[in-house]
Amino acid sequence: MVAIKDMLQAGTAIRPDGRAVDELRPVSITRNFTDVPEGSVLICCGNTRVMCTATFTAGVPRWRKDSGLGWVTAEYSMLPRATAERTDRESIRGKVGGRTHEISRLIGRVLRGVVDMKALGENQIQIDCDVLQADGGTRTASITGAYVALVDALRWAQRKRLIRSADKVLKDAVSAVSVGIINGTPMLDLPYIEDSQAMTDMNVAMTGSGDFIEIQGTAEHRPFSRKELDELLALAEKGNKALQAAQRAALNA
Amino acid sequence: MVAIKDMLQAGTAIRPDGRAVDELRPVSITRNFTDVPEGSVLICCGNTRVMCTATFTAGVPRWRKDSGLGWVTAEYSMLPRATAERTDRESIRGKVGGRTHEISRLIGRVLRGVVDMKALGENQIQIDCDVLQADGGTRTASITGAYVALVDALRWAQRKRLIRSADKVLKDAVSAVSVGIINGTPMLDLPYIEDSQAMTDMNVAMTGSGDFIEIQGTAEHRPFSRKELDELLALAEKGNKALQAAQRAALNA
Amino acid sequence: MVAIKDMLQAGTAIRPDGRAVDELRPVSITRNFTDVPEGSVLICCGNTRVMCTATFTAGVPRWRKDSGLGWVTAEYSMLPRATAERTDRESIRGKVGGRTHEISRLIGRVLRGVVDMKALGENQIQIDCDVLQADGGTRTASITGAYVALVDALRWAQRKRLIRSADKVLKDAVSAVSVGIINGTPMLDLPYIEDSQAMTDMNVAMTGSGDFIEIQGTAEHRPFSRKELDELLALAEKGNKALQAAQRAALNA
Amino acid sequence: MVAIKDMLQAGTAIRPDGRAVDELRPVSITRNFTDVPEGSVLICCGNTRVMCTATFTAGVPRWRKDSGLGWVTAEYSMLPRATAERTDRESIRGKVGGRTHEISRLIGRVLRGVVDMKALGENQIQIDCDVLQADGGTRTASITGAYVALVDALRWAQRKRLIRSADKVLKDAVSAVSVGIINGTPMLDLPYIEDSQAMTDMNVAMTGSGDFIEIQGTAEHRPFSRKELDELLALAEKGNKALQAAQRAALNA
Amino acid sequence: MVAIKDMLQAGTAIRPDGRAVDELRPVSITRNFTDVPEGSVLICCGNTRVMCTATFTAGVPRWRKDSGLGWVTAEYSMLPRATAERTDRESIRGKVGGRTHEISRLIGRVLRGVVDMKALGENQIQIDCDVLQADGGTRTASITGAYVALVDALRWAQRKRLIRSADKVLKDAVSAVSVGIINGTPMLDLPYIEDSQAMTDMNVAMTGSGDFIEIQGTAEHRPFSRKELDELLALAEKGNKALQAAQRAALNA
Amino acid sequence: MVAIKDMLQAGTAIRPDGRAVDELRPVSITRNFTDVPEGSVLICCGNTRVMCTATFTAGVPRWRKDSGLGWVTAEYSMLPRATAERTDRESIRGKVGGRTHEISRLIGRVLRGVVDMKALGENQIQIDCDVLQADGGTRTASITGAYVALVDALRWAQRKRLIRSADKVLKDAVSAVSVGIINGTPMLDLPYIEDSQAMTDMNVAMTGSGDFIEIQGTAEHRPFSRKELDELLALAEKGNKALQAAQRAALNA
Repeated sequence: MVAIKDMLQAGTAIRPDGRAVDELRPVSITRNFTDVPEGSVLICCGNTRVMCTATFTAGVPRWRKDSGLGWVTAEYSMLPRATAERTDRESIRGKVGGRTHEISRLIGRVLRGVVDMKALGENQIQIDCDVLQADGGTRTASITGAYVALVDALRWAQRKRLIRSADKVLKDAVSAVSVGIINGTPMLDLPYIEDSQAMTDMNVAMTGSGDFIEIQGTAEHRPFSRKELDELLALAEKGNKALQAAQRAALNA
Repeated sequence: MVAIKDMLQAGTAIRPDGRAVDELRPVSITRNFTDVPEGSVLICCGNTRVMCTATFTAGVPRWRKDSGLGWVTAEYSMLPRATAERTDRESIRGKVGGRTHEISRLIGRVLRGVVDMKALGENQIQIDCDVLQADGGTRTASITGAYVALVDALRWAQRKRLIRSADKVLKDAVSAVSVGIINGTPMLDLPYIEDSQAMTDMNVAMTGSGDFIEIQGTAEHRPFSRKELDELLALAEKGNKALQAAQRAALNA
Repeated sequence: MVAIKDMLQAGTAIRPDGRAVDELRPVSITRNFTDVPEGSVLICCGNTRVMCTATFTAGVPRWRKDSGLGWVTAEYSMLPRATAERTDRESIRGKVGGRTHEISRLIGRVLRGVVDMKALGENQIQIDCDVLQADGGTRTASITGAYVALVDALRWAQRKRLIRSADKVLKDAVSAVSVGIINGTPMLDLPYIEDSQAMTDMNVAMTGSGDFIEIQGTAEHRPFSRKELDELLALAEKGNKALQAAQRAALNA
Repeated sequence: MVAIKDMLQAGTAIRPDGRAVDELRPVSITRNFTDVPEGSVLICCGNTRVMCTATFTAGVPRWRKDSGLGWVTAEYSMLPRATAERTDRESIRGKVGGRTHEISRLIGRVLRGVVDMKALGENQIQIDCDVLQADGGTRTASITGAYVALVDALRWAQRKRLIRSADKVLKDAVSAVSVGIINGTPMLDLPYIEDSQAMTDMNVAMTGSGDFIEIQGTAEHRPFSRKELDELLALAEKGNKALQAAQRAALNA
Repeated sequence: MVAIKDMLQAGTAIRPDGRAVDELRPVSITRNFTDVPEGSVLICCGNTRVMCTATFTAGVPRWRKDSGLGWVTAEYSMLPRATAERTDRESIRGKVGGRTHEISRLIGRVLRGVVDMKALGENQIQIDCDVLQADGGTRTASITGAYVALVDALRWAQRKRLIRSADKVLKDAVSAVSVGIINGTPMLDLPYIEDSQAMTDMNVAMTGSGDFIEIQGTAEHRPFSRKELDELLALAEKGNKALQAAQRAALNA
Repeated sequence: MVAIKDMLQAGTAIRPDGRAVDELRPVSITRNFTDVPEGSVLICCGNTRVMCTATFTAGVPRWRKDSGLGWVTAEYSMLPRATAERTDRESIRGKVGGRTHEISRLIGRVLRGVVDMKALGENQIQIDCDVLQADGGTRTASITGAYVALVDALRWAQRKRLIRSADKVLKDAVSAVSVGIINGTPMLDLPYIEDSQAMTDMNVAMTGSGDFIEIQGTAEHRPFSRKELDELLALAEKGNKALQAAQRAALNA
């Protein structure tokens, strides 16, 4: 496990948990959390805990056959008691909700953004992100953890000689973090209590080289100005750098 | 009907349809497209045509009761032959797909961003966006058209004395447009042929006063830099200004 | 567009909209309503408006393979605000209702009744009828409009040399109209206000040569006698003749 | 059990089972087939066997509350091995098929056609028709059997003083029979082997006084003329008279 | 039909229906209940009546292909008015309930326990058990009746030369019966009134040679001791012997 | 965490993992595995790991209202990569499978068997068992872990004064273990590799006082004799005693 809390310089602590506005929650990344999957990671960002597995399978879905290209897909789900109030299972309700669909698609898109499909060849990687405990930022924690599981699955495939080189498949690293504006102040990495009060909420996925893979900013309560956007993006960059340091530390452990 | 094509100054036309990179497709907004709904709009952005209706109902969903606040929600759907290849109906498949869910949620969020729920009172507005023909930008056309239908529904409610003032409910206007990077060049308002080749695709919803309600930028093929982001946002601002002029012209007609 | 109102001789006007008992509502048939489908028709019968598309695909469903025969199928649906009260989407409810199923099957059966499956060869035509606005008679308007879309799709296929001759595939024209008994008086082409009060409601699909493809008569409130049946059939014949004239006019335009 | 075969005068026997063209298959109606339901009937029409139950419940669905009126509804289903090839259960497939929906709605409509909803009061009768063995005419056998189950349920309700008088609720008797044109010859009561070859297939529900409740005639293979329609209706009248005699005999037994 | 009541020696009658604690309800087994299935049995155990059919099909499900082995599967269902209160159809609810699933799986497992899959070859037998009337013990009656239908289907397959020998496929006979503890007294073959009061409820499937295929004992209200278990198993053995005698009598008739 | 491996005396080790036939796999029980639920337990039985949460809610389902009695229910699920091959999510498939239903019902029944519903009062406890890794015995591990989560939830409710006494609600402890016959030898606590080869498989839930709550024994491959049953029950008793010692140790920690 790798704690990145210390890497962040303290700002002025004004938040419920005593953090500075530009400070991440403690993050830990545990590889090989379970034994069976090709990649299996438990990521904890504060009280948010997500189990991320990566399943490597030879072959691709039918629509992608004979293209010479691979595919990466993701599914996100919350256990019923990840939340303070128990949430009914989507399997029992018989359908997957809009929020779940949206997040699953997001995770898949972001990971595909750093994968060279030609180098992957006609192989598929299925990411599963199951939230064991939710305290805000579950989709960004999922992305950050899933990247590590993806790397492990590719290394496994290289050892099994199913791909030539994991490094060639990976075009870059990727992580994601949430930022938001609370009472007019932009802040980094919102737990549930802050997230539910945010005027603007933004999730930003960035590569190791500092480019964007995905920006999703939303203002239900109050539109945000160009100046606020710039501040949010600066916070997100800082947070993602720290998360990528934690990813590297975990992968080198 | 209001054509805004003329309002845009020509850039250098390098696109399949001869447009400049910063030029919108022709847009028309037809109010009262059908007779029954409180608001009913047909919006055409190039070959994309969306029927947007707004249904005003007294009362709110159970979870919102006795809050004194209103609610706005949206559903998006494509007719089977909106696309070149016929798409199976989601009713027949028995479930709503992830993309549909995602877009429905987006439209609802964006419209809620300009509605004062207290001024709306315990009333609900349901937006339905049905794509009759799809040629890229269906979600942004839906938002732009739905805003006009929303205004009509609020004016209807004011005439029926169900709300005090439509103007008080509306905090601002809102429209949305897509931008993207094709072969390294940022462009405004992508039709399907461009959208399918874009390295980066971004949808931007802005208010009349120039703030952001929603930014969704995604890079499946190549990450985008901060500089590219700035250029995309500038194009989006230009496009949204023109769309809002078209909305105003339609509403004053 | 072709208005057939004038073709009908006036009876004694006693109906809410001033029509004679044997008078059709104004009908218009617009071809090429959207650009993409092989056949795309907007039909308006009074305030009822249905968008009918015909999709031509090479090949047939598996159960029909290697039979040398083609297939025609249809799906009917109503947009949520086609009606005065908004109707929930069947995609959201997760299942197609009985009424929708029944009408879809009816439309398919009637069109198959005029198609020579051998001449069509192993090709499939999928009809989609989406009701934009409903004011009674949506299933009969769907049939009447779908026939025109079907002809356009067959002509398209002939031009593309996918079939030898559209004329050979079409054994006859077909249209449909509703008739009913209100307060003891048989009437032609019922709008919603009349339909909801009818003692007996009957839908009659006839060929251009005056034979029947489908008769569906139902008496929830009061059984109907043989004499009344004969009067209803006479009205239906008159209505269908006029509708077929409108179809011919549209197809020759 | 009541056999009505003898009541029919022989025509010229030209059919696979040796019947005359205007001859019903043997019919038997067994009341109290099971013990628990308010009405429980096994009807056999040739090899077609349907179990029809009627469930009487105090109270009506919500939309009918405080109307002073009752309601009658029906559900039809086939057991998996009612047919030569096993049919998958609709419960397993997770949705009710179009044909099932259509027939369920037909049965309900026809029975409502002979029920005085005011005399029934705010009570509901649910009809269940489960086909144990299918050999053509399952929907018409269902109607004919369900009427007897309905009468038994009403008599039960009268004994329990839940309604004042079963006779007042019943405006008339009702039965149904299929007719069709095979090789150009109109025939009565088609078994599966004939039904599958029919050019035209028609189901006719008639009251005891000889009026129509429902006519559903369909011509997938060849349209039918007015003259053929008249012949089919004459056959249907003859068949329904015989079926109603069998109903009376069973109810008086 | 074969009544086995007389075969059982009377104990001390203390039960609602006057039976001794170790006495079965009257059982009858009717073969060829319907004409079409390869095996079709109506079994009545007291007021419980189940229609059991066995469908023999050449070929096995995909996952079993090229194994040289056959497969046996089962589906259980209750008609809506099998019970005193009408139960909604699972097809209408759109999903199969947990109890139905559980019983279907039980029946399939038990029958597979006496089938030699190699001797069956790559053929499949589908068992359908539809409860026409339910008065306790529907799952055990289903097993007992389904065994007879299975034998008939195998004999049919032998006659059709689809298998070499029905006797070689059948490793043994099998039947099942329920036992339970009521007010501290172990009893055999519980009808609904007893079943609903039982402290412990157990279903026992045994082969003709007296071994167990399945034991399912459950104590919602009061745990059961080892001594009680022994008494229940003794009762179950007695009941199953009698049921197997009834099976033999029916199969030899 | 509490390891019980040492408590078991070694038999003759003949098993893949070197255990004696009457030896449990190492078991650990971690309380407060997550922070939010009223009870949250991670149980590991060998490589099988299940997260069990207990949710305490005031109030009972509608059908149980005003009875003065509480209710306990359970849901079981497997994460997609709990198994060697990834399993599709039931939420995506849109329905809960038969196996899942069966196990959920089993867990609920067993726990209800030790709960005094009157002492619980009109409160509900929902158990969720999510399998993080599956290596045989997931249903029995779920029961054993869920009991500890249940106790924690009751203790929480006592502290919150929602119930008077957790001890009064609990009539006894309960645990469950699997036993089976492999190559003719009865064995305790089967991992997947053994389970898949077992001739007979049995799950036994016992109370702390040594009585049975549930016995489910199944013989797909070879029936089992009375003598074998006795041996299996003896093994199960031994295993359950050890598991209950582990439960006590965890609850006293």
